[in-house]
Amino acid sequence: MKHPLVLDPAGRKPGGETPLICTPLIGRSKERLLGELATILRKKPDMLEWRVDCFDAVADTAAVLDAAVALRAAAAGLPMIFTCRSAGEGGQPTALDEAGVVALLEAVCEGGLAECIDFELGNSPAHVRRVREFSRKADVSLILSYHQTSYTPGQEFLIDRFLEAEHLGADVAMVQVRPRDRADVLRLLAATSEADAKTRIPLICSAIGPLGSVSRMVGGLFGSCLTFAVGEHSSAPGQIPVGDLVSVFDVIRRARGGEMF
Amino acid sequence: MKHPLVLDPAGRKPGGETPLICTPLIGRSKERLLGELATILRKKPDMLEWRVDCFDAVADTAAVLDAAVALRAAAAGLPMIFTCRSAGEGGQPTALDEAGVVALLEAVCEGGLAECIDFELGNSPAHVRRVREFSRKADVSLILSYHQTSYTPGQEFLIDRFLEAEHLGADVAMVQVRPRDRADVLRLLAATSEADAKTRIPLICSAIGPLGSVSRMVGGLFGSCLTFAVGEHSSAPGQIPVGDLVSVFDVIRRARGGEMF
Repeated sequence: MKHPLVLDPAGRKPGGETPLICTPLIGRSKERLLGELATILRKKPDMLEWRVDCFDAVADTAAVLDAAVALRAAAAGLPMIFTCRSAGEGGQPTALDEAGVVALLEAVCEGGLAECIDFELGNSPAHVRRVREFSRKADVSLILSYHQTSYTPGQEFLIDRFLEAEHLGADVAMVQVRPRDRADVLRLLAATSEADAKTRIPLICSAIGPLGSVSRMVGGLFGSCLTFAVGEHSSAPGQIPVGDLVSVFDVIRRARGGEMF
Repeated sequence: MKHPLVLDPAGRKPGGETPLICTPLIGRSKERLLGELATILRKKPDMLEWRVDCFDAVADTAAVLDAAVALRAAAAGLPMIFTCRSAGEGGQPTALDEAGVVALLEAVCEGGLAECIDFELGNSPAHVRRVREFSRKADVSLILSYHQTSYTPGQEFLIDRFLEAEHLGADVAMVQVRPRDRADVLRLLAATSEADAKTRIPLICSAIGPLGSVSRMVGGLFGSCLTFAVGEHSSAPGQIPVGDLVSVFDVIRRARGGEMF
């Protein structure tokens, strides 16, 4: 499938100095999701992420597929990342176990209902292999992700997460951490920058909370190709509305005069 | 003198999460300086810096004092940093030797023509002591500064420059470097952040060139209390217009929801 989160024909990573903007959909029902989407579309993000772990009927595959079809029809061609974030990595608790998530991802891939799926690096190797197989067969990009919602691990560990994701066949590698001080934010950016030089796939880094909000603005300068932004008002400190990010990115592009790292 | 580049009554450093904005004046003549100032005032920076090394008549003390009086009268109360940057640290070549710069700074302090003066850490210890004495006597703040226009030294060296400036009695310590890659930018920010925790005076960090422009936007989050911004169009990549910085700072303050590091 065609979407912006892939290398261009010359092998360059997407985003450049300012990352693509992705807005999550977190509605509990199909109706709420469609309402959320209508608001978000006016903000013109580059991509959408459906966080299906927030969906009340997540364990009902038919209901998920029905909502996915409705979102596709209403999304005006915007590429979608389909994500069932586990509770251990910051998602909502659901009735699905790991095998249930794998089955749901497979149904979405087979239905051609997303351009990308997200799966966590920490899942069992057999499941990671299986998800890689069916997503490749369906021509759906695979984001392998690592989230530490409590603190920020060391720089070498973070670099290894990006490299491990690439090693396991990811099309995109993502690392999200919670900084406890400003040195943590710089360490995440340094890890991303170093991993970017060592990998051939697009990377995403993100630091949650108010301390981490700066990473959403300047991560592109350090190798992150995507940033998450809220469509309307932010619901927690650290989240940035799409329009605010767009204006910061305009300043970054002007200030750098087109010169890249 | 009262100006924003000092600790508040509670001992807090100025700027907070977004730094104060200072706009340099680089006119070659009094007339050009006054024209520049008129343009800059409309942009509403927090402070001005007169880079007197750019002034054709810099070696004519009477001409400098005359221009300084005219700038004061036209500056609508905006605080002024008076700086004669040496050629070795990125300034324009002038006819003044180090003793000549000291004498000029003394005349400006005695005339009460600036709130702050800048002097380089690399000058002779005797001159640094002398400048500290007369500036203190005149109640003028002293910025002791270090500039490396070619590369970015190591993190410990940069931290030491901040600490050395405080040790020598500076009211403000400033470090400016040229990054050669993005890791250099992160190292400058990390050094500033660590030095900020170790010092009691306000710090300023700045990275020049397009690679460094991000430091002008986010330096405040890592302990820099002042950023330099151009009043009108930028004359080189990496310089950011005041208005652009103001909009980035608005986003940073909203995103952080008032929470400080």
